[in-house]
Amino acid sequence: MHTAPAGLVPDGRDDFTVLLSTVPAVVSAVFTRSRFAGPSVTLSRAAAADRTARGVVVLARNANVATGAEGEGNAREVRAGVARALGLPEDELLIASTGVIGRQYPMAALREHIASLSTPLPEGGFDRAARAIMTTDTRPKAASARAGRAVITGIAKGVGMLEPDMATLLTFFATDAQLDPGELDHIFRRVMDRTFNAVSIDTDTSTSDTAALFANGLAGAVHPAEFEAALYDVALSLVKDIASDGEGAGKLIEVRVSGARDAAQAKRVGKAVVNSPLVKTAVHGGDPNWGRVAMAVGKCSDDTDIDQEKVVIRFGDVAVYPPGAHGTGDEDEVRAAVAERMRGSEVVIGVELGIAGGAFTVYGCDLTDGYIRINADYST
Amino acid sequence: MHTAPAGLVPDGRDDFTVLLSTVPAVVSAVFTRSRFAGPSVTLSRAAAADRTARGVVVLARNANVATGAEGEGNAREVRAGVARALGLPEDELLIASTGVIGRQYPMAALREHIASLSTPLPEGGFDRAARAIMTTDTRPKAASARAGRAVITGIAKGVGMLEPDMATLLTFFATDAQLDPGELDHIFRRVMDRTFNAVSIDTDTSTSDTAALFANGLAGAVHPAEFEAALYDVALSLVKDIASDGEGAGKLIEVRVSGARDAAQAKRVGKAVVNSPLVKTAVHGGDPNWGRVAMAVGKCSDDTDIDQEKVVIRFGDVAVYPPGAHGTGDEDEVRAAVAERMRGSEVVIGVELGIAGGAFTVYGCDLTDGYIRINADYST
Repeated sequence: MHTAPAGLVPDGRDDFTVLLSTVPAVVSAVFTRSRFAGPSVTLSRAAAADRTARGVVVLARNANVATGAEGEGNAREVRAGVARALGLPEDELLIASTGVIGRQYPMAALREHIASLSTPLPEGGFDRAARAIMTTDTRPKAASARAGRAVITGIAKGVGMLEPDMATLLTFFATDAQLDPGELDHIFRRVMDRTFNAVSIDTDTSTSDTAALFANGLAGAVHPAEFEAALYDVALSLVKDIASDGEGAGKLIEVRVSGARDAAQAKRVGKAVVNSPLVKTAVHGGDPNWGRVAMAVGKCSDDTDIDQEKVVIRFGDVAVYPPGAHGTGDEDEVRAAVAERMRGSEVVIGVELGIAGGAFTVYGCDLTDGYIRINADYST
Repeated sequence: MHTAPAGLVPDGRDDFTVLLSTVPAVVSAVFTRSRFAGPSVTLSRAAAADRTARGVVVLARNANVATGAEGEGNAREVRAGVARALGLPEDELLIASTGVIGRQYPMAALREHIASLSTPLPEGGFDRAARAIMTTDTRPKAASARAGRAVITGIAKGVGMLEPDMATLLTFFATDAQLDPGELDHIFRRVMDRTFNAVSIDTDTSTSDTAALFANGLAGAVHPAEFEAALYDVALSLVKDIASDGEGAGKLIEVRVSGARDAAQAKRVGKAVVNSPLVKTAVHGGDPNWGRVAMAVGKCSDDTDIDQEKVVIRFGDVAVYPPGAHGTGDEDEVRAAVAERMRGSEVVIGVELGIAGGAFTVYGCDLTDGYIRINADYST
């Protein structure tokens, strides 16, 4: 792996990473569905289509999005330059970029940096890479797990403009497990659906979302179920890191929806709750204003099978709705118990719809003046 | 009109209003679609179904939502008590209530206040009523216009939990114009769609949204088109008041979408932009980070006919996208011009999709630490 400052912003911070498998690898990747997806996403989607790739070039602090034909040319040139330096065909490399939208890359600095690349790249270096790909993240996110003789390592970044739709901002997984490409792809998509596609910081879907898993097979075959469980652990760990590091966030919010018509409805309701600015600010203030959760469930107005007379709402183990569900007639006592449950760094909200057996859990964070400060003055 | 403190919160503030026509009137009303709509909405919807009503009872600072059978009984008792005091059938009165969710009304105080009502109610009093129905509003919202010999007066409240779906939080219009009930209903719904249904403060749809227009005909017939234009002016004036008084807001954001497939698509894109926390915080900070508007347009990922190569984005008269649309190759110059356009109290963002002729304008506000402060500690 190569990580260095390439001058994307001229302050000497690491901002350029090349993650590379030493041997040919299988890849599974999912991308943003944004109608303003940048050239990095377009190029990478094409490169991953044949399910083989050696690695990815990651540029931080400039998204290269909404930059027109010039931006597309720059993305091609960066990837081609790196591929040439490493002696690889271009389409064996993915490219990913996040940061300010609408700015051209500083190509002079990038050309100079790429010209200085030499092979072989150093081994390891996930921690430094996890730090280099950060934008407004306050800490790097990396996690590992074993599956048989194989290891899975994942890194991720992203704390704002974050409601993944097919993927998160950026997350990369590398493993030496050997799996059938089709099976790997199924496993990867299933795990992404239950982890990265279940997190939302601010409902703003990035133009740059990219998630990719590289598997080079060096550790030999592993049991697919064991691999999937290990990958889920790594991904969930990264997701919780991401949610609790949401821009300005102080608390992780976990919304567990059950009793839904199906998982899709459970997810819709969960997202309505975890994305509600009023729920998020109440959690920030430790304000036991649980009625806002009822309001957020009510927002799913097209789900006409949601019947407020069947809904149960909990904060941790405290049932707050329907009235009397808590076993005391005293509203203030319930609010005091909820305030207690809100004191920790993780707030768990349960919503039972009473329709059928569908369930889904989503992850998010509170909304604070820190988010406002970070985002009121980001590009300048 | 009657307005007085009824002790909903025992601090002596006006919180109880009865708006009443002196003679029988025609009514048109629209309500929230929330699955957690309260008993006020249920009772009022039924009362307005025959298109006649004399007026509405409005209670502030307690929503009477998620309060179960006890809450429903209380709503019925309050309305019945007021109707009895005024010598009216119950179903000639609508009832509306906003404020904290999940708290029962203080019925002892309300019974005492209703027992003290005497007829006839004083004439006029819209200004005092506009103030009494406020919750976190910082100023009352009232507007009037003439249509022929008739007058239309409207009042509104609502600055948070505000993304109306069929109506806004609370808004009431009274006119002495005479119109056919069916025609009045069509006019009212058309005007609401282009005004109150075009505003969003924080995407949180209230459980209590109610909009009603009472027309008692005392001024005689008016020309429907003239009436509609006057009603639109009154409603738009209230909507702009509401958006610029959004919780913690400093600026009104107006997003004008054109060139869409149809009005529905234009509205969807407009809402994506005006609801984006990143766009809202950028406007708050006067940060010319226009790429966030591109990101927000891109969020409409199901609208696959949106093609970034056809989109034009403007801040006021400054074209920021596509690159070069502004006629200068200097990115910093464009950002400086955008920063200039963001300095006023009203920021106008234009999005031209280049698909067909659909257009829609939506209204919202910036997102500030004031919103966080207000909502992190509201119920307690």
